[in-house]
Amino acid sequence: MKIIEDGCVCSPAGFRASGVSCGIKAGQEKDLAMITADSPSVVKGVFTGNAVKGHSLKLTMKHIKENPRALAVVINSGNANACLGERGDDDAIEIARETSSLLGCSIENVLPGSTGVIGVPLDMDRMRRGLKSAAATLSASGGHDAARAIMTTDTVPKEIAVEFTVKGKPAKIGGMAKGSGMIHPDMATMIGILTSDVSISGELLEKAFRECIDKSFNRISVDGETSVCDMVLVLCNGACGNCKIEQQDQSYEEFREALDFMCTALAIMVARDGEGATKLIEINVEGARTKSDALKIASAVAKSPLVKTAIFGEDANWGRIITAAGYSGARFNPELTDIFIGELKVCSKGTGLGFDEEKAAEILGSSEVSIRIDLNQGKAADRIWTCDLTYDYIKINGSYRT
Amino acid sequence: MKIIEDGCVCSPAGFRASGVSCGIKAGQEKDLAMITADSPSVVKGVFTGNAVKGHSLKLTMKHIKENPRALAVVINSGNANACLGERGDDDAIEIARETSSLLGCSIENVLPGSTGVIGVPLDMDRMRRGLKSAAATLSASGGHDAARAIMTTDTVPKEIAVEFTVKGKPAKIGGMAKGSGMIHPDMATMIGILTSDVSISGELLEKAFRECIDKSFNRISVDGETSVCDMVLVLCNGACGNCKIEQQDQSYEEFREALDFMCTALAIMVARDGEGATKLIEINVEGARTKSDALKIASAVAKSPLVKTAIFGEDANWGRIITAAGYSGARFNPELTDIFIGELKVCSKGTGLGFDEEKAAEILGSSEVSIRIDLNQGKAADRIWTCDLTYDYIKINGSYRT
Repeated sequence: MKIIEDGCVCSPAGFRASGVSCGIKAGQEKDLAMITADSPSVVKGVFTGNAVKGHSLKLTMKHIKENPRALAVVINSGNANACLGERGDDDAIEIARETSSLLGCSIENVLPGSTGVIGVPLDMDRMRRGLKSAAATLSASGGHDAARAIMTTDTVPKEIAVEFTVKGKPAKIGGMAKGSGMIHPDMATMIGILTSDVSISGELLEKAFRECIDKSFNRISVDGETSVCDMVLVLCNGACGNCKIEQQDQSYEEFREALDFMCTALAIMVARDGEGATKLIEINVEGARTKSDALKIASAVAKSPLVKTAIFGEDANWGRIITAAGYSGARFNPELTDIFIGELKVCSKGTGLGFDEEKAAEILGSSEVSIRIDLNQGKAADRIWTCDLTYDYIKINGSYRT
Repeated sequence: MKIIEDGCVCSPAGFRASGVSCGIKAGQEKDLAMITADSPSVVKGVFTGNAVKGHSLKLTMKHIKENPRALAVVINSGNANACLGERGDDDAIEIARETSSLLGCSIENVLPGSTGVIGVPLDMDRMRRGLKSAAATLSASGGHDAARAIMTTDTVPKEIAVEFTVKGKPAKIGGMAKGSGMIHPDMATMIGILTSDVSISGELLEKAFRECIDKSFNRISVDGETSVCDMVLVLCNGACGNCKIEQQDQSYEEFREALDFMCTALAIMVARDGEGATKLIEINVEGARTKSDALKIASAVAKSPLVKTAIFGEDANWGRIITAAGYSGARFNPELTDIFIGELKVCSKGTGLGFDEEKAAEILGSSEVSIRIDLNQGKAADRIWTCDLTYDYIKINGSYRT
């Protein structure tokens, strides 16, 4: 497996994309992305766990359920198309219909998504103009524009592609994601689109995708929030010409491994670019009795504003880490717990160690910080990525809507 | 019932207190509080739900369990006496022993508490000197000093006292609290001490106390964190000379009502003085199918960094409120939900309303903001107090330990 230089959602054969500005976001910023497959693609999606669901997302869920073949994904940023009653549903349908008529496909082949402010109706005249322009500018080099067009408070576009082989046949997966606040397991204000030119059965794509999502997009937390528009989609068009993957054989494993790498890479990009973040934080919990205990602790530590502000302040305040573990609801004995910041052991069997504060400051001064919590009670482990909590998070979110 | 001017834990008859500086906190700041009852007092406590528990707190739990009569409470600030292994347990015992010898009582009558940094051993020489000085300066006017001595990142001491009648007999309750970060239901980095001169059975005190705590200290959230040292204690010494309350009669109700008022008042003081807070926020959820649903939603909204930063930014971003409700885990139909900011309806049946932004800005410009979420699905309700999330929270917590 090899990372493709300058890779994007169009790196796999048979995909085109575009990103245009249609005036939903202020200025001339790109705010509408279109990705199309040259032939009907098997598609799977994972969607927000939030009880409130955006209208575009609900239509995409419906389309995938009724007809799991896709030809186009259309995402606008700057407006979530959520909490708008019938009007929001109508607008989502209109986006899909307009796109299908521009591309000459059926409406069920179009998957719309929206991300941005809640409760403000979409300006459909602008959307229609934008869709025309997006359809007209589709190209095999349009992936970077698409990745830029789905950004909200992201500071950088998030894209990557890999090439690998399926039973000796060269294949590719491309991907892009957005999302920087409202990030937490079970999706966040986060949209991810993965494209691949492999041929695979829907059943096995579902299986591989769920597994990969669980270890990646469901293991990042920026602020503990999940939004109403979050989804990750994967489209496989079969253009690489491999023998269709229909069993859990070597070719399935080759694909799954590449998909896993892609999902993890994109998820980490999202965590690293968390709103206002200066540091990527990896939290590893080991030695738990059960995987659920490990996840509970990793999740509580990743969400703890006190841990996250301490790391922003480069303060080795491990007391906040064990405290978060303590209220996580996990079953564990604090008196067996070891805590490491980077390679530095700061707490042994639940008791603070005298440690080298300079060494700790050096570790915490880095842009990547790892925390390891060893419960010494079993063999289960889990891992979450998060980021620090900074002044800029407050700045960004104290004045987002206005 | 009447609020006593300048009231404190010594307002009820038969209590004395002091607050001294023993050098645990930097400078000459007071860091050791002592409260004593002139006669053995029936005592009840509610303690942190955190699996990690501070050594002083654990000893107090043990003493109350073995012998529910107290004569003294001793609280130091600046050091949590937590995560220190045997040494922490020994130090807690030493604090109780030293106090008991100074006061001439049994060690089980002394209840120690500690709040501050985790994992740093207490300087016991300073503590011993402090305890001597605290015992020597006990007085019926020492409540204010005690309230000041338990502060950590609090910006103001939190005290109140009321007088009321029990079957015509004048009685009083006094109280103080500290705590401003790590605040969440089930106790937080929060310590509260309530004193009363009524005579009441242990059983009924327990019942009234639990009920009042549940509606007050268990309904505040600053940052969703609960610490290892949180406790609220209530001591009743019987000095007012009422007929002992032994049944759920009128006198019980009179006492319970006053205790409820006291707990709520102190809890709101804690939420209002949340770390870095500029606004007190009251979140009311109504029309829920069950009380548990109402609490889940109130709690999710109260914890949401996006809601809290929006209110700091005085931005009527109700989309974040319904989003938090959506991921709360409560059962509700978003399409029936109404949301009000102050008296202003911003969302009706899950759909955004055009509202007067100037009016919204005026409401959000106040130092007290109320949010009301009506689910329109039942009759259950709940309420939580929280505060906004500001630059100063980051400032305070980015550099607490160092």
